[in-house]
Amino acid sequence: MKAARFYSAKDIRIEDIEQQVLEPGTVRVDVAYCGICGTDLHEYLEGPIFCPSVGHPHPISGEELPVTLGHEFSGVISEVGEGVEGLEVGDHVVVEPYIINDDVDTSEKSTDYHLSQDMNFIGLAGRGGGLSENVVVKQRWVHKISKDVALDEAALIEPLSVAMHAVDKSKVQEGETALVVGGGPIGQLVCAVLKAKGVRTFISEPSPLRRQKAVDAGNVVDAFNPMEIDVPEKMRELTGGAGADVCFEVTSVQAGIDTCLDAVRTQGTVVNVSIWSKPASIDMHKIVMKECYLTGIIAYVNNHPETIALVESGKVDLKPFITKKIALENLIDDGFDTLINHNETAVKILIDPAGRNL
Amino acid sequence: MKAARFYSAKDIRIEDIEQQVLEPGTVRVDVAYCGICGTDLHEYLEGPIFCPSVGHPHPISGEELPVTLGHEFSGVISEVGEGVEGLEVGDHVVVEPYIINDDVDTSEKSTDYHLSQDMNFIGLAGRGGGLSENVVVKQRWVHKISKDVALDEAALIEPLSVAMHAVDKSKVQEGETALVVGGGPIGQLVCAVLKAKGVRTFISEPSPLRRQKAVDAGNVVDAFNPMEIDVPEKMRELTGGAGADVCFEVTSVQAGIDTCLDAVRTQGTVVNVSIWSKPASIDMHKIVMKECYLTGIIAYVNNHPETIALVESGKVDLKPFITKKIALENLIDDGFDTLINHNETAVKILIDPAGRNL
Repeated sequence: MKAARFYSAKDIRIEDIEQQVLEPGTVRVDVAYCGICGTDLHEYLEGPIFCPSVGHPHPISGEELPVTLGHEFSGVISEVGEGVEGLEVGDHVVVEPYIINDDVDTSEKSTDYHLSQDMNFIGLAGRGGGLSENVVVKQRWVHKISKDVALDEAALIEPLSVAMHAVDKSKVQEGETALVVGGGPIGQLVCAVLKAKGVRTFISEPSPLRRQKAVDAGNVVDAFNPMEIDVPEKMRELTGGAGADVCFEVTSVQAGIDTCLDAVRTQGTVVNVSIWSKPASIDMHKIVMKECYLTGIIAYVNNHPETIALVESGKVDLKPFITKKIALENLIDDGFDTLINHNETAVKILIDPAGRNL
Repeated sequence: MKAARFYSAKDIRIEDIEQQVLEPGTVRVDVAYCGICGTDLHEYLEGPIFCPSVGHPHPISGEELPVTLGHEFSGVISEVGEGVEGLEVGDHVVVEPYIINDDVDTSEKSTDYHLSQDMNFIGLAGRGGGLSENVVVKQRWVHKISKDVALDEAALIEPLSVAMHAVDKSKVQEGETALVVGGGPIGQLVCAVLKAKGVRTFISEPSPLRRQKAVDAGNVVDAFNPMEIDVPEKMRELTGGAGADVCFEVTSVQAGIDTCLDAVRTQGTVVNVSIWSKPASIDMHKIVMKECYLTGIIAYVNNHPETIALVESGKVDLKPFITKKIALENLIDDGFDTLINHNETAVKILIDPAGRNL
């Protein structure tokens, strides 16, 4: 079958590979659509980062480069392994793409399996990926979705689960005020979850196109240009002098975290949702005098069921965030390079790896 | 009456001043003992910081330099103003030394009066101070203590309330593991509160004398020298690989906050209890991959009752932390300069401003 395989920075190849063996407890998912994540772009530009380099196989998957890419995907079950219950051929599904040690408690009660040692992702550290015709996944990580949800939108449930986890971590309540700093794909989806949860949401983003996207999607009360407006001051004006109850840092730049710490109210929470490649300079005195919290999140933990319910109920509309759909052979030119070079206009580009839907 | 008055950096004068007028709703406290706080040292070395400079009177007290110093004090009520209930002449008391706007809710239910606008402290921003023969204080900020508590130990209830607030903020539970980074006075008192709450406590401190103090006071399981031991690694060893449930940063130096973020477990909490004069460099990726919390505290909020109960019950013994007691006229030589120059051996130096007890 065809698959996009990551060899090294700037070296992704579309190849014909053997499909994975269906083991007991797994299902085969025929991929409908797979998105490109910021993490994939980082691997492409400066990887391997999450991907296991040659000679250093991942301790759980046992695999090393080259690996199949893609961890944001939807699909249809085409084969069901021995011992699998509650999933059938023809089911529409999304995948929570974890590679986690077998001795970790990954039950529905767990709140920390995503922080277990050597945790990594399908589509980055082995076990196949969504940028291939099909992928074999352990039953635990396969979530059935309603056939009423379009499969292209369903491919965005994975990044939407990241946003859900970030919003949960903030402990924001209905009716409270949130500031999202950064209007890239995850920032947009954080706004969508906040709106669905009844939070009064504002976004700070220098790009007019991204601001417009957040406004058009109907998820924010207002969108501010931080190059023109003192956003923390604006948030205080909008909250009777208090500041935002919660702020989300989705830029991984210094000005972003500064804005969050300036805009958050006393005893409020700043959630970092971005991946930093260098340290941030933090004014500890602000944290002291506000007694606020700075925390961060990675991925998701038991967030898929609530996220899926939000999409199934129509409370989150993912259509506005699909920029285009392309074939696997155009992955680099129309996918990676478009996202890197025309980053402002593109939110999510979806790949149809088997050409089933295009 | 005699009082120590702060004029400017390196200029503290022992002067004869008029005593304050007893207003309705206030009591006069004859000061028994008053401690010197790190904040007082900062004012002495590089102030005014909290103290209102000349021409910039504090918006609530209306006072500016010179001001009477001292906010860690115990005493005996010598006069009771009109309308005061529940306090009598002869009562032993400690003071929660706040200057807070009248329109702020400072009730026992409030969790944030200490974060209100223009909040400042008696003994720094006006309204007298503990480094004088007596001080007039609003009833709200006067806490009665048992006569079984020695008045010298009682002078440490104010910094102990800071420690109590820090421990509360961490949400640490009985039986959990804590690391305190820094063995100065507040670090020592944080250990004392943790021990009283049944927390398994360790301290990291380069000074052998301070380590010995923490061990001798019986508040820590072990004390580590971070110049010789990899403290985060040690904490993981001691917790089955997990790391400390909570860490307290009480140094305001980069290595201190680094140790905390390295030593804390996933989803654990780092509480900053120190005052930083410059930004810290924070590895956001650690916060992301651990999903831990970084927060900070300033002073206390409704922590005095529980703190006093801890001392009255004998669960915290403050005797080990009293280094010596001196007369007001020796404040600079035997007080400030000793703390600045012989910082390792001295924990708390108490002043008896009226010479009532020496």
